[in-house]
Amino acid sequence: MDKFFNPASVAVVGAGEKNLGGSVVKNLLSGFDGGIYPVNPNYKQLHGIKCYPSVAEIPGKVDLAVILVAANAVPPVLEACAGKGVKRVIIESAGFSETGDEGIALQKKCLQIARKAGMRLWGPNCMGLVDVHRPYFFTFMNPEVREELLSGRISLIVQSGMMSAIFLAELGRRGIGVAKACSIGNRADVDECDIIEYLQDDHDTDVIALYLESIPRGRRFAELARKSDKPLVLLKGGESRAGAKAAVSHTYSLSGDSRLLNSILDFSGVIKANSMFQMMDMAHALTGISNINPACRAAILTFSGGAGILACDALEKSGVTVAELSKQTRRAVAEIFPSWMPVSNPVDLFPAVSVKGRKIAFKGGVDAVVRDPGVDVVVIHFVAGIGDEAPDLYSLKQQADENGKILVFWLMGRRLGSLQFKEEAERAGILVYEDATRLAECISSAARFSAHREERGQNPGNPEVVKDKSAAEPLPETGKSWDEHDSKKFLAGFDIPVVDEKIVSSADEARAWAEHAGMPVVLKGLVPEKGHKTDCGLVKLSLSDRLSIESAFKDLSDKVKGSGRILIQKQVHVDYELIAGFMRDPAFGACVMFGLGGILAELEPDVVFELAPVDRQRALKMIRSVRNRKLFQGFRGRPPLDEEAAAQILVDLGRAGTAHPQISQIDINPLAVNRGSPVAVDAGVVLT
Amino acid sequence: MDKFFNPASVAVVGAGEKNLGGSVVKNLLSGFDGGIYPVNPNYKQLHGIKCYPSVAEIPGKVDLAVILVAANAVPPVLEACAGKGVKRVIIESAGFSETGDEGIALQKKCLQIARKAGMRLWGPNCMGLVDVHRPYFFTFMNPEVREELLSGRISLIVQSGMMSAIFLAELGRRGIGVAKACSIGNRADVDECDIIEYLQDDHDTDVIALYLESIPRGRRFAELARKSDKPLVLLKGGESRAGAKAAVSHTYSLSGDSRLLNSILDFSGVIKANSMFQMMDMAHALTGISNINPACRAAILTFSGGAGILACDALEKSGVTVAELSKQTRRAVAEIFPSWMPVSNPVDLFPAVSVKGRKIAFKGGVDAVVRDPGVDVVVIHFVAGIGDEAPDLYSLKQQADENGKILVFWLMGRRLGSLQFKEEAERAGILVYEDATRLAECISSAARFSAHREERGQNPGNPEVVKDKSAAEPLPETGKSWDEHDSKKFLAGFDIPVVDEKIVSSADEARAWAEHAGMPVVLKGLVPEKGHKTDCGLVKLSLSDRLSIESAFKDLSDKVKGSGRILIQKQVHVDYELIAGFMRDPAFGACVMFGLGGILAELEPDVVFELAPVDRQRALKMIRSVRNRKLFQGFRGRPPLDEEAAAQILVDLGRAGTAHPQISQIDINPLAVNRGSPVAVDAGVVLT
Repeated sequence: MDKFFNPASVAVVGAGEKNLGGSVVKNLLSGFDGGIYPVNPNYKQLHGIKCYPSVAEIPGKVDLAVILVAANAVPPVLEACAGKGVKRVIIESAGFSETGDEGIALQKKCLQIARKAGMRLWGPNCMGLVDVHRPYFFTFMNPEVREELLSGRISLIVQSGMMSAIFLAELGRRGIGVAKACSIGNRADVDECDIIEYLQDDHDTDVIALYLESIPRGRRFAELARKSDKPLVLLKGGESRAGAKAAVSHTYSLSGDSRLLNSILDFSGVIKANSMFQMMDMAHALTGISNINPACRAAILTFSGGAGILACDALEKSGVTVAELSKQTRRAVAEIFPSWMPVSNPVDLFPAVSVKGRKIAFKGGVDAVVRDPGVDVVVIHFVAGIGDEAPDLYSLKQQADENGKILVFWLMGRRLGSLQFKEEAERAGILVYEDATRLAECISSAARFSAHREERGQNPGNPEVVKDKSAAEPLPETGKSWDEHDSKKFLAGFDIPVVDEKIVSSADEARAWAEHAGMPVVLKGLVPEKGHKTDCGLVKLSLSDRLSIESAFKDLSDKVKGSGRILIQKQVHVDYELIAGFMRDPAFGACVMFGLGGILAELEPDVVFELAPVDRQRALKMIRSVRNRKLFQGFRGRPPLDEEAAAQILVDLGRAGTAHPQISQIDINPLAVNRGSPVAVDAGVVLT
Repeated sequence: MDKFFNPASVAVVGAGEKNLGGSVVKNLLSGFDGGIYPVNPNYKQLHGIKCYPSVAEIPGKVDLAVILVAANAVPPVLEACAGKGVKRVIIESAGFSETGDEGIALQKKCLQIARKAGMRLWGPNCMGLVDVHRPYFFTFMNPEVREELLSGRISLIVQSGMMSAIFLAELGRRGIGVAKACSIGNRADVDECDIIEYLQDDHDTDVIALYLESIPRGRRFAELARKSDKPLVLLKGGESRAGAKAAVSHTYSLSGDSRLLNSILDFSGVIKANSMFQMMDMAHALTGISNINPACRAAILTFSGGAGILACDALEKSGVTVAELSKQTRRAVAEIFPSWMPVSNPVDLFPAVSVKGRKIAFKGGVDAVVRDPGVDVVVIHFVAGIGDEAPDLYSLKQQADENGKILVFWLMGRRLGSLQFKEEAERAGILVYEDATRLAECISSAARFSAHREERGQNPGNPEVVKDKSAAEPLPETGKSWDEHDSKKFLAGFDIPVVDEKIVSSADEARAWAEHAGMPVVLKGLVPEKGHKTDCGLVKLSLSDRLSIESAFKDLSDKVKGSGRILIQKQVHVDYELIAGFMRDPAFGACVMFGLGGILAELEPDVVFELAPVDRQRALKMIRSVRNRKLFQGFRGRPPLDEEAAAQILVDLGRAGTAHPQISQIDINPLAVNRGSPVAVDAGVVLT
């Protein structure tokens, strides 16, 4: 990949006087210090340099070719590049897979040529790449946008062509600096994973910000994110379109609406943004806050009680704790406060102004909270240009640094005053926000990345998927989908606790088993093709005497009519229902799922997904990430879940699923919890 | 109230050369055309006009006095005002109820003087009022902020002093105009309700934006909001601090975390904002969009596929429908599209550029969607300053108006270009947003207000609370709190369906009742003092034979030991559990509650509150506003709730609660639904 970013020479095929190829040449001339070779048979010279009639006729080596000819003219150009020994090509032309069948075929053809020639192919349908530090512009991007770019520590990976220009323009407008910007288009070959990997060692990049509409190599993406020392901030387009999946199993249906993707990326430490500007602001914050207490606690200083309350609301909503000030801090603050005023956080300095004056009040407030060991972030609400005199921001930053505190301003005020303040603060390395909500979101994202990094130190990664066939019983040979009983037998083979049960073929046998095992019992008619047993009247609960067992058996026999069989099982006492599952996702591969079961969980799914197999520690993390985990943590006197036992089930479920490639989905639903112990009461395995 | 806003003369008590009172005088001189009387014994003249030693010595009538002396000097000034016959006073001094006990006493004293003199009192601890149109400034606000104010159609009501200056400064900075700004401070007398009422008839005000940290007269506020033809946009501070309430009943505990307030304000048509800028942007949007289809459908035009996707995501997340384009529209769009490109919404115009050129593509797109009868809003994503040539915004706006469409821009681009575009667009009356999320939130808030207004046309209001004692049985005389059976007897008196049950005093009696009524039955030990019956083992479920009834009776007899009694009831089949309740809130008065019951509903409460009593229509609206209503609307084969029957229960519950002022809370939990019919299975009434 490095030669994409650091070629010694670049050919631009399709350059002209005024076309997009010509813009590439002009952009190259503005900063690229290697060989520049425009290719176009119609010109001898272009933009002041020699132009070549064909790639073959370029003297010397070509490290990178940028192609901007009409789509159907691209394959011959690629052949020419192959002939010349060019190993890296960026196709910026459009008209490929995004346009339908013909374009898909054309793109496939390009990829074949590239593969054969051992050539890496970037694009097509993209804006190429930009390195603001060098500055290198291998792109047809408008030169006016180029001029507004600031160099910085964020690198961008953007799927859509137009969007990368928009991102760069907006970052320039907001005064946020950029290292590299990679517009990857249709991703025929080079994709976001390749670039993330490359940027790991890029000295100019501290944070990677991405705009993607799909993540076809999801598993690789998640694995790279887990290893990355640089935060990944992702804006995902098309969230509302995630749309309906055909629900074969609960696990599969619950993975929809981006739930699987979001869950796994969350476990991978990816920071998800939900709008363009939030993405930019979070990425910017992460370049400034590289180390923060994951359980981050904020002190708030303000001259307006109302603003203090709003800051508090915003921080708590984002999961940032409003710090409990220490005794010493409170004593120090009390010295500048009027006697009637109790000290609390937010620290409202307004009444202190009347006692000590504005300057001493401000200094006293800062001095007190900045030294508090229970404070990680100092949020200062400030109004520039009406009354509040600007403090010396450099010494304020130094004071914060010396005390190991993050300093952030919530800035308001008049037009000019606040603009000046903001520029001054950013020069001093202080983050400034106009919006308290955004401020809180950014602090929270930094804390989440810290938490991820800390956790990773303790548990470096998931176990590899091993085809551990020795651990698995051979797969039962009963056709495409197994019934409940076969499914549970299979799971029991992986040490997953299942309910006591037996297939019975007569009412007598059922009654005898019940008398031996103890009542109440449940009778079920197993017909693999029928969807939901309860909905079809195939489940008979709470059978406590011989008579009801016999009548239930008879009824079910009529219903299954030789197309299925009848299962008897002990009716276990259920304190609450959970759900666990396994599935193979096209992008993320083998995954395990865990969450709340029962009807309301179907209304508002509360489940998490993780790459399978999982180890004990990751399984515990899954269990502790369920939104309403308090349900199984001793809620209203219910016996708490044995989390170790549940974690073991997830570990075993991952083993079971990954051991057999024929298994596409497994449901344990419900995973019933009886006095803390989880047990599979119903289960299903779906084979491909 | 009118004389607060339109006094013929204003006295400023506590005016000086350089103090806040002096600022009030200077602000008055900048625009007030009536008499201005500074009062201060130390000056003969102030800021170029005559100064008076005392209020008494002012010649002629004083319509309004603005007081800015030290807090403890305020009462004598009020007495002087009373002596002079001043009927309206704004106390802008701080040092009252916000400072603790002494201040509370001082504020009470001021109120007493005012009441005695028939004087309305505004403040204390506030910044007074501003009328940008006149321009009148009865405030000590910084004159520099004043100069940046634009006159517009939003009026502000702000509780906190500093915040009103901040709001005005920020609105000025964002180029949003203001009509009146009312800083109301401690609200000793004049409060937000008085001002909302006044602003109803104010010709300069189209939208009322409020920042409040509490709403002590919540019921009045909600009633005014319901009647208001002008949208109310509320930013509520202190949401995260709502804190814990002592949970006497479920209804009461579920009302916490601002759930009751949010629910009732939502039913009242109040638009809730969750940040300062969102509040300003929503208010601004509502001045521009006065009439929009409540089921608003948007068409999106863009030159970037990615931006189209993000716009789509943002709109759908805010509940705005992305329009299904008509056949005719699709045909018209197809004419500018390349042949391979299918037409959909968002309309991505980029490929059309290569066919028709940018100008014709844009015009073709606009012409097509603006005529579509299935489109209410046209959202245009536009990049100013890179490539996209600015269209004629005035004719674009005219075209939209002629077709009855709202036109909104999502604007990006380079610094200067986008600033110019924005100013031009706002002059043309077009709303412009930088952030798609905010754009979507603003359209959605306009649609919600339209929905509220439309609904109000059909159902003008709640029934009045009538002490309809004839309908109520006399209250049973069994002490402070009733047990379950007494509670249900009371509810049954209001025609609320309750489960079949009887108090029994022997095992024989229980058995006989069960044999007559039919098994299974439930036995309960009723001990009013004991909190949760199930948690205390006082509920025996699924009793299906004589033996188990007898043993359950014996066990419960031991447990209640003369301190309670034993209830037998039919065990009803339950398809799902709901909850209904009644309570009196300190701010909102009598309320009814409805929502999902059961354990998961306690984890993530899904309940709504409404002012009691409710009529049938409002009760139905409550039922249809439950977040997870699909549970009782035929979810997965469950029989749907008889919504009319449930609504009748809410109507009757409201009647029952409001008929007796001694009743403070009523719980029906669960309100079990058996084949669609709701019935009270357990209930409790709490008396004051």
